[in-house]
Amino acid sequence: MPSEFDLINTWFNWPNTADSAVITGIGDDAAALAVPAGKQLIVTSDTFIAGVHFPHETKPHAIGHKALAVNLSDLAAMGAEPAWFTLALTLPAYDETWLGDFSLGLKTLAQHHNIQLIGGDTTRGALSITITAMGLSLPEKALLRSGAKHDDQLYVTGTLGDAAAGLAMLQQPLLTRYESCIEQLDYPQPRVQHGRMIGDYATSCLDISDGLLADLQHILTASKVGAVLDLVRIPLSKPLQHMDKKTALRFALSGGDDYELLFSIPLERQKEFERHIQQQSLICYGIGHIDQHIRGIISSEQQPLTPKGYNHFIGTNH
Amino acid sequence: MPSEFDLINTWFNWPNTADSAVITGIGDDAAALAVPAGKQLIVTSDTFIAGVHFPHETKPHAIGHKALAVNLSDLAAMGAEPAWFTLALTLPAYDETWLGDFSLGLKTLAQHHNIQLIGGDTTRGALSITITAMGLSLPEKALLRSGAKHDDQLYVTGTLGDAAAGLAMLQQPLLTRYESCIEQLDYPQPRVQHGRMIGDYATSCLDISDGLLADLQHILTASKVGAVLDLVRIPLSKPLQHMDKKTALRFALSGGDDYELLFSIPLERQKEFERHIQQQSLICYGIGHIDQHIRGIISSEQQPLTPKGYNHFIGTNH
Repeated sequence: MPSEFDLINTWFNWPNTADSAVITGIGDDAAALAVPAGKQLIVTSDTFIAGVHFPHETKPHAIGHKALAVNLSDLAAMGAEPAWFTLALTLPAYDETWLGDFSLGLKTLAQHHNIQLIGGDTTRGALSITITAMGLSLPEKALLRSGAKHDDQLYVTGTLGDAAAGLAMLQQPLLTRYESCIEQLDYPQPRVQHGRMIGDYATSCLDISDGLLADLQHILTASKVGAVLDLVRIPLSKPLQHMDKKTALRFALSGGDDYELLFSIPLERQKEFERHIQQQSLICYGIGHIDQHIRGIISSEQQPLTPKGYNHFIGTNH
Repeated sequence: MPSEFDLINTWFNWPNTADSAVITGIGDDAAALAVPAGKQLIVTSDTFIAGVHFPHETKPHAIGHKALAVNLSDLAAMGAEPAWFTLALTLPAYDETWLGDFSLGLKTLAQHHNIQLIGGDTTRGALSITITAMGLSLPEKALLRSGAKHDDQLYVTGTLGDAAAGLAMLQQPLLTRYESCIEQLDYPQPRVQHGRMIGDYATSCLDISDGLLADLQHILTASKVGAVLDLVRIPLSKPLQHMDKKTALRFALSGGDDYELLFSIPLERQKEFERHIQQQSLICYGIGHIDQHIRGIISSEQQPLTPKGYNHFIGTNH
């Protein structure tokens, strides 16, 4: 059985794309990195546990992908360019097949977004992955939650509810199974390119992990405003369009695990923003607007919409 | 029961010492940080699991201290000044007494070393703590493992073997119990001040976590040299001086969990270095020297000394 050092060298010390900013990577007490002058450092950390964040039967390739994807999604939500990450991996046993599959999922996404593994830790215990991702942004571009203003237009970067529907399909075999929903659950694509472009326009931004309503409420609370959602404009994928309307909306509004960006654009910059989005061949969907005169969230038919987020210490929606 | 957000705000969002480098801390998708021009970023990540890294009966205050201390020790070993850290905390249940005690241990050490908590994640599961610590150093001062040269003098920053002896005392109640050893096991003091001073002189440095011999071997391998240890100069605390010599040396050479720095100083700078150490009222102990003509480690009596490090995937010394 290999030592910890061999484990890191075998599975996680893959050749890097040349990156002069890494002075010392894996193998010393810590990594030494050069942050370019004028850039600010963006840091996020997420833990990923079997049975909590993904079903136990999830393939290791998907676990490797998603553990990094949720962190890249946080960087995207700040408008940052991915740079480096550390991996803390706790494994019940040394399993070559598992490690090969996991590291391939991780590496494929890392190389796609040009983010470099610079260190970490491996330990024996219940399966758990903590990734700390670092990105770079121009100070004036960093996207916070707190800047949404009256009349700002609300957008999301993709269809909502697919991952939650995918999870329901895994848990309830009687439901019609759509592979695209399960794919969205296992392989969320972090909206890094959107985030960097949105940084030029948005007054607030976050990524949807707890469900549209719960995460929108975070923006509203931080920005001290309310919002109106146009429910007929919430983007739904083909499988969700085939479901009954109430179920589909429940997945889309409260499901979570979407990892799409939710952001606000000033009304006077809306046209310019939409033109720019089209030029970049990116897709965004307008779903409503900010209203400083209301509290919380209402539909355009004046129905109050109540967030139901997920709380790890309750274990159910609350 | 509070939500995750309340949990972070209640226990971990303590008032910071004014630090203009933190642009956005806890509460957004990620933290935004300003790295001063000319400094390089040093990053390390360590996981800390009950039953693996500390006995299950360890007090939460000590767990909070040690989880951060082992990361600060890695920063110290790079000669870096502590700056920021993220905390990924997985807990079996929401327990106010536990959280209060844990956060106090963490906070006390964090404030002592002026390192700021800037984000993280809380999850339900088997008790596990992953901290990613970030520090700053001048590029020419970063201490690697790979620079040790022939005739360099080897030093450590404190007595060795106390933590390993403390663990043995907890596991074998028949042994004479010395509280100072158990204190050293629970509350290692990261040698941050030493590390920053040593950065002006040392050709290699690391912190001793796996035992003196195993960690010295890391320097020797990276630097492609051998070393001679003068066993009578290995610093031992009063309790270890009272033990039989063989047991005490076993703890000191192979025990691990010391979190003292081990480093090499060029022979021609030895006097200057020792004068500087005294002026700063710091303590270091000379324990041997580098020899490029031998392989591995020998004692000054020509006895080969074999590293026995700890491997999490074997679970015993190997």
